[in-house]
Amino acid sequence: MLQQAVDPVGRVFQALADPTRRVMVERLVGGPASVSELAEPFDMSLPAVVQHVQVLEGAGLVATEKVGRVRMCSLAPDALTGAEQWIRQRRMLWEARLDRLDAVLADDEERTTT
Amino acid sequence: MLQQAVDPVGRVFQALADPTRRVMVERLVGGPASVSELAEPFDMSLPAVVQHVQVLEGAGLVATEKVGRVRMCSLAPDALTGAEQWIRQRRMLWEARLDRLDAVLADDEERTTT
Repeated sequence: MLQQAVDPVGRVFQALADPTRRVMVERLVGGPASVSELAEPFDMSLPAVVQHVQVLEGAGLVATEKVGRVRMCSLAPDALTGAEQWIRQRRMLWEARLDRLDAVLADDEERTTT
Repeated sequence: MLQQAVDPVGRVFQALADPTRRVMVERLVGGPASVSELAEPFDMSLPAVVQHVQVLEGAGLVATEKVGRVRMCSLAPDALTGAEQWIRQRRMLWEARLDRLDAVLADDEERTTT
């Protein structure tokens, strides 16, 4: 539990691991929606939908606000950016390593052929 | 279970949700490593480490190969790229929506001031 609390990137990945929650994120990319609107595509009880929304909210991916009697949800894209950056940085380090390997191999080849 | 099997992006996010597995990915970004080498930073039994490696392998993030008596692990970065693209596409759609909103607001302001 403590680990979860201090692992923001992990919470975002955990939230996005579920296909229902990814559909909810995709819906919110198009603009804010009420919990009932988010529930529409799913054959799921409202409490189950609320639980998914809470996981998204806990990960910082979604902000909710009570407007009258309706709870409105909107995307909070900073958490999405954080997770994207985590992946991108690793991919770029990996590609830089491959480039260095290529350079070493090309250098070796040049030495053996000259 | 079936859902897991047909949800490759979900499996990558699930694999990356765990901080131990993210450290393993970061290690493998620097080049291949044996299971024992991956285990080094952790106060964890070897079977627990193997289980984490299997989750990474199941998500397509890591490829393993038996070399003599040692199981070597290497990063398979395509799965990482897939997850990165999923996030980037949603972020870009979101930003495009904000740009359209900005344009509408600017247009409105122009009409009211002229």
